[in-house]
Amino acid sequence: MERLLQSCRIQSQLVRECLAEFLGLYIAVLIGSGAAAQVITSQGTHGSYLTMQLGSALGTVTHDVCFLSGAQLNVVWSMSLWLLGRQPWRKVPLYALSHLLGAFLGAATVYLQYYGKISTVFISFLSFPLMNMYIAFTFFVVVVATALLLICCLAVEDRRQGLLPDGLAPVLVGALILTIGLSMGSNCGFPLNPARDLGPRLFTFIAGWGEEVFKAGGGWWWVPIVAPFVGGLLGTLIYELLIEVHHQLTEGDVHNGPWKKTGTRTIPLFHSSSLF
Amino acid sequence: MERLLQSCRIQSQLVRECLAEFLGLYIAVLIGSGAAAQVITSQGTHGSYLTMQLGSALGTVTHDVCFLSGAQLNVVWSMSLWLLGRQPWRKVPLYALSHLLGAFLGAATVYLQYYGKISTVFISFLSFPLMNMYIAFTFFVVVVATALLLICCLAVEDRRQGLLPDGLAPVLVGALILTIGLSMGSNCGFPLNPARDLGPRLFTFIAGWGEEVFKAGGGWWWVPIVAPFVGGLLGTLIYELLIEVHHQLTEGDVHNGPWKKTGTRTIPLFHSSSLF
Amino acid sequence: MERLLQSCRIQSQLVRECLAEFLGLYIAVLIGSGAAAQVITSQGTHGSYLTMQLGSALGTVTHDVCFLSGAQLNVVWSMSLWLLGRQPWRKVPLYALSHLLGAFLGAATVYLQYYGKISTVFISFLSFPLMNMYIAFTFFVVVVATALLLICCLAVEDRRQGLLPDGLAPVLVGALILTIGLSMGSNCGFPLNPARDLGPRLFTFIAGWGEEVFKAGGGWWWVPIVAPFVGGLLGTLIYELLIEVHHQLTEGDVHNGPWKKTGTRTIPLFHSSSLF
Amino acid sequence: MERLLQSCRIQSQLVRECLAEFLGLYIAVLIGSGAAAQVITSQGTHGSYLTMQLGSALGTVTHDVCFLSGAQLNVVWSMSLWLLGRQPWRKVPLYALSHLLGAFLGAATVYLQYYGKISTVFISFLSFPLMNMYIAFTFFVVVVATALLLICCLAVEDRRQGLLPDGLAPVLVGALILTIGLSMGSNCGFPLNPARDLGPRLFTFIAGWGEEVFKAGGGWWWVPIVAPFVGGLLGTLIYELLIEVHHQLTEGDVHNGPWKKTGTRTIPLFHSSSLF
Repeated sequence: MERLLQSCRIQSQLVRECLAEFLGLYIAVLIGSGAAAQVITSQGTHGSYLTMQLGSALGTVTHDVCFLSGAQLNVVWSMSLWLLGRQPWRKVPLYALSHLLGAFLGAATVYLQYYGKISTVFISFLSFPLMNMYIAFTFFVVVVATALLLICCLAVEDRRQGLLPDGLAPVLVGALILTIGLSMGSNCGFPLNPARDLGPRLFTFIAGWGEEVFKAGGGWWWVPIVAPFVGGLLGTLIYELLIEVHHQLTEGDVHNGPWKKTGTRTIPLFHSSSLF
Repeated sequence: MERLLQSCRIQSQLVRECLAEFLGLYIAVLIGSGAAAQVITSQGTHGSYLTMQLGSALGTVTHDVCFLSGAQLNVVWSMSLWLLGRQPWRKVPLYALSHLLGAFLGAATVYLQYYGKISTVFISFLSFPLMNMYIAFTFFVVVVATALLLICCLAVEDRRQGLLPDGLAPVLVGALILTIGLSMGSNCGFPLNPARDLGPRLFTFIAGWGEEVFKAGGGWWWVPIVAPFVGGLLGTLIYELLIEVHHQLTEGDVHNGPWKKTGTRTIPLFHSSSLF
Repeated sequence: MERLLQSCRIQSQLVRECLAEFLGLYIAVLIGSGAAAQVITSQGTHGSYLTMQLGSALGTVTHDVCFLSGAQLNVVWSMSLWLLGRQPWRKVPLYALSHLLGAFLGAATVYLQYYGKISTVFISFLSFPLMNMYIAFTFFVVVVATALLLICCLAVEDRRQGLLPDGLAPVLVGALILTIGLSMGSNCGFPLNPARDLGPRLFTFIAGWGEEVFKAGGGWWWVPIVAPFVGGLLGTLIYELLIEVHHQLTEGDVHNGPWKKTGTRTIPLFHSSSLF
Repeated sequence: MERLLQSCRIQSQLVRECLAEFLGLYIAVLIGSGAAAQVITSQGTHGSYLTMQLGSALGTVTHDVCFLSGAQLNVVWSMSLWLLGRQPWRKVPLYALSHLLGAFLGAATVYLQYYGKISTVFISFLSFPLMNMYIAFTFFVVVVATALLLICCLAVEDRRQGLLPDGLAPVLVGALILTIGLSMGSNCGFPLNPARDLGPRLFTFIAGWGEEVFKAGGGWWWVPIVAPFVGGLLGTLIYELLIEVHHQLTEGDVHNGPWKKTGTRTIPLFHSSSLF
């Protein structure tokens, strides 16, 4: 009886986490695409490129603060945590599905909000490369941006327990996303989150724009899905090789100071001794 | 004698709270409408859509920090707290009246500040739908925006005691209002607070613009009053159903950790056992 | 001997404080007028109204954080603290002189930085009313703005010891100044600080613009000096009457909670018993 | 054996620090030049002068938070810390080399990201004086800006241990850099960091622009290298003379309050007794 309750509770925990992930992407698209739609439909009178990015970044902060407790919100981040042995692999596909559903419904909500101005709202949902860009270079940009994101998220995560005041972590991640948007966003809209791009794309596909959304930009749609994974992998590797490893070396030395993590990591991916 | 003093003190407490609510809306309109009036009267040379929203959001932060101690500032929020059993119903209408009076006098002050440029200042007080919007869609936008606001406020409130540093809560709420303004503000000016719209509207009605302020936008004036209540109810429900309930389930499990609230809630609206 | 040392130390303390006040206004003008000069000399390509205000506000934060320890930076604030019995009257004129000197030299530094573009830099130092404004209304605007500033500064000061994290107070004051700039700055440039306006005005008077700087705007130069004092007095009165008084009433009641001040206030201006 | 290990560990500590410095400048150029390149290549549609500065400032915050633990990121700051006796001189040239390498590779990465639009990206890497500026005045601007930066960094550093919440220090430094950019950036782009300018300049020299990058602006290239050192020296002197000295005088008096530093400073540069 007790084991049944236990397993039931664990399962409901997973359902609850998926619910949080779903809500997170829903709000991210609701605010992010909303901010873009507002700029586009008002032809710049009610916003600018900066407000778009600011809205997007504040959306992340908003969600993180509200539903925090470990919401991951990006399947690349989920993958990274799995690679580092901090969570079981089963969570990755489940979270990915939740993200996709949330992003899909978020796009539907924005679609309703701007129903009177549908025709131009379309481009606010999706990221596309600019006319004169080679796909290879946009791929490179997205890989660099996602790698930077992952490195910083891992660093913030590490410092979360000891050095950062509670509540500052999401602000930092939001600032980082704003930074990336301001420095790498012009070529192809910096799609850092596969579901954030694919969900609304599927919605526009169904809502009447048809195959065009997949053909546009020279069949560009796969870049926002593949490149973030490549960048995420790269970022995780760089962080582990350049930074994490050295912390572990000195860990015993500094009496397991504020860096000591308790129970969050079970199996380190890389054995530091074999690398350094 | 002592009982007389006691009841007198309680009453004075209520009067003081109403005073704080009054001052809050006064400052909110003074700053919010002032920021709008500045952009409009200077034809954009001394501000933009972003500064308008920024002024509005910072006005909230300013007030919250200065007079904090539980000022609610929005009758929808008061209603939500009453529904959740966290305050008696009597406070709701009293606060609403204080808000209305504060917003009315705030509009009067801005009117005086821009006395030399009256004719255009008018639109800085009120929210109206854009030309080509159906009322139903603007209603939908306001409901979504208010629901989002309530969900986040409830979440911040819950986290206030344990996880957030003091003084950060108003900053988060201000950031949220900025976010909503940047992502849902272009269709009808996102009126999230009934008194914030009705007070200045009554002032302009008296100050010489007459019935026009109620007829404009196809008789739109009731939307900023009704829609926030609908959105507030929806947001409170969503938060209780999706999030609060699960906290209560695990509360005993995690040894009543940082989430444990002491004395702030007396009667929960929804019994978690019957819902989950 | 010991008394001599004691008095010497007290005097050096005062000199040090004047030095901090001097440096504060120097930096405020260096950054504030610099930000304005940058926008004006680049004809808007290297900044906008928002960046001007942001620079101004961040200048305040910068200084406060660096030299904090009670720098007052505005003679109106010094006057308010004296009225409330929190400091001797002698400090007010000494601080005012330090402010004036700092603002004068700050203007001289900006003048040097933009030496190649002198002719237009002039207007970045001074505040003037717009063409079509009555002086009475600009006076009213400045009074309202200064009153708001004082109310909020007094509130922040009160909350400093218990409720706000260290270092957040200057950020809040900076945000408030930004807010005022965004909502009340277009009519006459919101001069909240007499020395901040008079110092650079004296510099431009000496540096070659002559009597024009005092004649311009219909002899407007006295408004930025007189109006802030009126507003400061008003703000101090409002805060004491509406808020401070009630704290003192309940102080004994709540066991001298976080609001208890120890030693910072010696003689309250208004005796609460006679007012409430 | 143990001594070998000890010395090995110390050396690896230095290598690790150089790695952090390298990564820091890499990210600073990646984000800072990226933000500039985005504005330039999109001809202002995807950013403005403000976003450029914001990106630059947030880049600093990002790095500081992620790799904190004493990363200095500016050889002028390293020099200042050495002058104050807080670190050995050997670190200064090693850090300078790391910075140069990081900035060089950061420029290369941005070059790749904008490969399709190379011709205009060039100016996003380097700072140049405006047409009608005398070199002497730009030199003066850079000296003032760097002196201000150093004064504030020293102040923040001093307050770090007791008064500022962890994680706020980099935010303050980022805000300061934004402030400087908004108030002193229009004449010559405020180069505060020698490596930040020289690294990308060497890259553009090699990448095909040739001698032009050193000849442009009337042979201006040496100003961003020399002026920051002069400003850094000046700022360090001012801080020590005007502020630090007085802390030390009263240190014994206030029972070594929060200002007491333990072990971070070994040999004070100026003996306070001989100066005051």
